[in-house]
Amino acid sequence: MGLSDRIDRAIGTAISRGQARPSPGKLASALHYTVTPGGARIRPTLLLSVAAACGDDRPVLADAAACALELIHCASLVHDDLPCFDDADIRRGKPSVHRAFGEPLAILAGDSLIVMAFEVLARAAPEDPLRAAKLIEILATRTGMPGGICAGQGWESETEVDVRAYHRAKTAALFVAACQMGAVAAGHDADAWEDLGDRIGEAFQVADDLRDALYDEETLGKPVGQDDLHGRPNAVTELGVQGAIARMRDILGGAISSIPKCPGEAHLAKLVTAQAEVLTPLKWRAAQVPGE
Amino acid sequence: MGLSDRIDRAIGTAISRGQARPSPGKLASALHYTVTPGGARIRPTLLLSVAAACGDDRPVLADAAACALELIHCASLVHDDLPCFDDADIRRGKPSVHRAFGEPLAILAGDSLIVMAFEVLARAAPEDPLRAAKLIEILATRTGMPGGICAGQGWESETEVDVRAYHRAKTAALFVAACQMGAVAAGHDADAWEDLGDRIGEAFQVADDLRDALYDEETLGKPVGQDDLHGRPNAVTELGVQGAIARMRDILGGAISSIPKCPGEAHLAKLVTAQAEVLTPLKWRAAQVPGE
Repeated sequence: MGLSDRIDRAIGTAISRGQARPSPGKLASALHYTVTPGGARIRPTLLLSVAAACGDDRPVLADAAACALELIHCASLVHDDLPCFDDADIRRGKPSVHRAFGEPLAILAGDSLIVMAFEVLARAAPEDPLRAAKLIEILATRTGMPGGICAGQGWESETEVDVRAYHRAKTAALFVAACQMGAVAAGHDADAWEDLGDRIGEAFQVADDLRDALYDEETLGKPVGQDDLHGRPNAVTELGVQGAIARMRDILGGAISSIPKCPGEAHLAKLVTAQAEVLTPLKWRAAQVPGE
Repeated sequence: MGLSDRIDRAIGTAISRGQARPSPGKLASALHYTVTPGGARIRPTLLLSVAAACGDDRPVLADAAACALELIHCASLVHDDLPCFDDADIRRGKPSVHRAFGEPLAILAGDSLIVMAFEVLARAAPEDPLRAAKLIEILATRTGMPGGICAGQGWESETEVDVRAYHRAKTAALFVAACQMGAVAAGHDADAWEDLGDRIGEAFQVADDLRDALYDEETLGKPVGQDDLHGRPNAVTELGVQGAIARMRDILGGAISSIPKCPGEAHLAKLVTAQAEVLTPLKWRAAQVPGE
């Protein structure tokens, strides 16, 4: 079974269990709406790729970890889209959850998905309770306070921002989680994988800045120009388009060098290289933003 | 150390860790604001009482469980108070979190506390990984969908409500979690303790209905008359004040009979009886609501 099938199956099973009756029907529908159709599933794919590189000796744990990580990511999108944050009307090409279901159900869908992520990992614990506990600890650390994506969003309410802490929490946190959880699910040490996750996260932050600057709303499936609008730091503003592309490729080069020794090291390096190509479409390589 | 000291210490440690720098200062403050001063800490006290009745052979796990349960309860209060739900201006006698910090930080504080609850349990896992995983599974089940407090709140968006499922999810769920987690932390089976939690939860639902009908806002520290306002089912509307008091005492009598065999069975029965007295202040026993 391919990685994306494993991810979809694990997510489908979790959502179905969350919809078991008796349950409030609209919230049950909102859960399904939130996770389908999936985006690129980049984080769980990275997680399973790392698990594969480490031998993937407990695929049930790896699948649970991939599912849990994607549920957290989806929950964060639902809450970030709320009127008091980005006030986004569309997400992945369809109405955002609060536009489709209203604010109360959007808040509850996010809450329920956060909880479901930890439930999925707890249910997989009989496979290896110590690994499962470590997976839960990593996911929580990279989701909550002081260094997870909640903290990342929290920085946007500060007048003085620690930019490095902000980016690490807002974007890199879940990539670090992906790398560390993939390794831990397969019985490897978490610490060695932090650097790779950090670098991939940094590259994605730059890619996100490029998309925000270069794409229109229809192509992107969500509002553009959000960084300018909210006064958030952005690599394109700082370096220009070509400078940002060069920065991103440098970072990914560093990422490849940082891959820890493991059975699938060479294959994983190829995947990261391929990702670099996906992140910088050919047409970007001659692109500029107005006024550049 | 008394139960309330154990609870306060565990919560204090968790919040401090969540505030470690670098972290966004306002969100860090909102976390502390949300959990202090504590309310009656009824759920974690019940949890530790059940753990004590079961021998409390792993107090580190029991403390983590009590802390996690209270964090989830506090998170639910913050989200329930939001403008799109109860729109409550005050909670525990001070401005609600969104009134003090704004909506974005209230949403993030709730999210962070949910995550922190699971993190606390995962960090305690080395004490006994299988028990910890079971604790996480129980807490998740009683918090999320389809049967936890998120589901309970979700029922309020439905036009046709399964009233029994609604009350079990909205109020009883965290009392079931308290009883089951207390037992599991001490190495006992979870299933035997569900009935006690259900009954205590039912009694609290009736007590809450009585408070909502009989107290003014200043005494209660939160808005009153919310059930009438939101068209929610209420035992006082259905049975009158004295009928509701009688119902509550019946339920607690049943709760005492349902306590599973355990070393501290008699002491736990005394605690539940004492709680029944607290829940029905003398002055209520002659009270009526206008028009009764």
